[in-house]
Amino acid sequence: MRCEIVAIGTELLLGQIVDTNSAWMGEQFALAGIDSHYHTTVGDNRARMVDTLRLALSRSDAVVVCGGLGPTQDDITREAIAEVMGVELERDADMAAHIRRIFESRNRRMSENNLQQADRPTGARAIAEMPGTAPGLVCPVGDKVIYAVPGVPYEMREMLNGTVLPDLRRRAGVSAAIRSRVLKTWGNSESGLAELLHDRILELDEIGNPTLAFQASGIEGLKVRITAKAEDDAAATRILDAEEVRVREILGDVVFALDGASMESVVLDMLKARGLTLAVAESMTAGLVGARLGGIPGASAVFRGGIISYASEVKFDLLGVPEGPVVTAACAEAMAAGARRVLGADIGLATTGVAGPDKQEGQPVGLAFLGLATAEGKKSLEVRLPGDRNRIREYAVINLLNFLRRELG
Amino acid sequence: MRCEIVAIGTELLLGQIVDTNSAWMGEQFALAGIDSHYHTTVGDNRARMVDTLRLALSRSDAVVVCGGLGPTQDDITREAIAEVMGVELERDADMAAHIRRIFESRNRRMSENNLQQADRPTGARAIAEMPGTAPGLVCPVGDKVIYAVPGVPYEMREMLNGTVLPDLRRRAGVSAAIRSRVLKTWGNSESGLAELLHDRILELDEIGNPTLAFQASGIEGLKVRITAKAEDDAAATRILDAEEVRVREILGDVVFALDGASMESVVLDMLKARGLTLAVAESMTAGLVGARLGGIPGASAVFRGGIISYASEVKFDLLGVPEGPVVTAACAEAMAAGARRVLGADIGLATTGVAGPDKQEGQPVGLAFLGLATAEGKKSLEVRLPGDRNRIREYAVINLLNFLRRELG
Repeated sequence: MRCEIVAIGTELLLGQIVDTNSAWMGEQFALAGIDSHYHTTVGDNRARMVDTLRLALSRSDAVVVCGGLGPTQDDITREAIAEVMGVELERDADMAAHIRRIFESRNRRMSENNLQQADRPTGARAIAEMPGTAPGLVCPVGDKVIYAVPGVPYEMREMLNGTVLPDLRRRAGVSAAIRSRVLKTWGNSESGLAELLHDRILELDEIGNPTLAFQASGIEGLKVRITAKAEDDAAATRILDAEEVRVREILGDVVFALDGASMESVVLDMLKARGLTLAVAESMTAGLVGARLGGIPGASAVFRGGIISYASEVKFDLLGVPEGPVVTAACAEAMAAGARRVLGADIGLATTGVAGPDKQEGQPVGLAFLGLATAEGKKSLEVRLPGDRNRIREYAVINLLNFLRRELG
Repeated sequence: MRCEIVAIGTELLLGQIVDTNSAWMGEQFALAGIDSHYHTTVGDNRARMVDTLRLALSRSDAVVVCGGLGPTQDDITREAIAEVMGVELERDADMAAHIRRIFESRNRRMSENNLQQADRPTGARAIAEMPGTAPGLVCPVGDKVIYAVPGVPYEMREMLNGTVLPDLRRRAGVSAAIRSRVLKTWGNSESGLAELLHDRILELDEIGNPTLAFQASGIEGLKVRITAKAEDDAAATRILDAEEVRVREILGDVVFALDGASMESVVLDMLKARGLTLAVAESMTAGLVGARLGGIPGASAVFRGGIISYASEVKFDLLGVPEGPVVTAACAEAMAAGARRVLGADIGLATTGVAGPDKQEGQPVGLAFLGLATAEGKKSLEVRLPGDRNRIREYAVINLLNFLRRELG
């Protein structure tokens, strides 16, 4: 079963709105085992909409059209579908009455334009769910089908879950459960991971189930997604469990988290389990490390706080760093020890380096020193980070948290 | 001149990533007067990529292909373009050497796969900008052209601005200058702004040039975009200047910045102009204020640093806040005064409040107190912020910086 997505709206083409609907629908299709080979965005232009729908129907079994169902003159999805079906629009009296009632119940004045939304191509039926004032449509075209849903995300989602997906699964005769799990990694390149997993991927290509896929997420690292198909959820989960073990064996401890977990949540959990508290001293990151930690609910059980030592004197006076150059391993270590002492924490972390755009102390943009101090002593890590100022700072944060994770692991 | 956008990547079809690139490119095209009638997303499948590129070229003058230029087996954009051009791939020796140097300069091991990125279809040339390891390509196809750019947003943007847009404008023989300017506002709702500007928008609808448009940007505020068309840049700029004056007269001081400027850059500029230094004390924001300030190159001239006082004891011990409840106006003021004193700054700012998900000290999620201390004294602002934990924290940051902006203004 193949289903294409067609997003309607000149405002999407002009970049006034980012289309998040297509990604959400694509994810639902993938989880339901429905292939979606093309997503197309087209403006509020009837001829181009008709061409796009015809092309989509020619290469897929079903099409979801999202948007263009409102009450204005620009909303011509109904007309375009009728043309593709080779039928006329007719006004659905029940639907018109329903739309009138919605406006009355909200004490809003209804303009006559709103009744356009009760028009449907002959042979189409309304989707049962209708959270807004725009009805969705199921429009048969031969043995294929076009579903029309509104562009408002929560309206689209309700109709997709309530009518479109069940109808597609029924048409496909799908009974299998498809589940996926994401392993997040830090510390190896995409090509490095691909090399490590090369043999396993070839094996799985033979077997066909589960599958492995890579996903680059920039400062969130690289993800490996395992997708399993089975007769029911429990069986799919067993396949995921077994494959996760194999992938972890192959990749080792570059795997830092699963699914919704993040580097900071993992590190906070490890500290909590060990009953340790944390403090930070930040120069080049200027608060980003603290902000990431503070984004996790319950961080306060572990995270005591930090010193943003942006000016060098703050490093010397407040953190007790010896005066001298600050883009050094020694400075990072002294900052970490200072944060630990001043904030009364078990572990201190620190960042110092050159975020750019200019060199500092003759050191190149991207050079950073990450410090770590515990009751046992202090150490540091030198890294060279790519990208612009913001990326360098973000990379410093995740490298620092990963440094601590490896130390605790 | 028509230019289509083709986004490449199975991960886009599967909804693992939301495609923000196409919207951004669509906006740039609109501002440059280039029509873009279709955006298509297709997976890492050579036959479907080739079909999509051929279709796009048949109905437009140019195509931008975004993604699929990486070093893995999935990255086959180069191959698909070569097939459409009817030529072979050849390895560019200069490019290969350049890629080797990038890896050496970062002390990273290069896998041989990475050299795939030096392959280009015969007759194509590399795009001059190359912020990552993936080269972009300009690929002539008869009198039309395919541009290939990486899917990494900042790499794509640099290549679009540096090469693709200038080349498209040259091909289009664009003579009219279209320029726009964005006025960023904070402190009024979209409907409030629309009401204030209603009469002016009606007037401009009559005249036709310039135009005004709204754009909601969440925690970045609401934007008003002025777009002017004229025979040359200087004339367009004169129209923008005149309209900016009118819009500012109508909206007053909710306008905080123009174009690329941000709330934090504006505040830093104001402080610099007055020769004042700044320090922060952050509880609920846990470093976000410092991180935003530190994101601006040259912030160190003004920003001395901060205390992330996440644990209450840090507020009491390090900042000298009197012991007691911390979700109060008095605490915010004492924190701001403490930051000013401890870090030796002219102005201290502070945040304290309830980011959620749970209540704190019996106070509701979203309640925040923002503190401000100067040599003259201290004051605070109480705000109730909408959204989830992250949005509440981000709204606290911009409200705090706007509080300082109004105070300095």
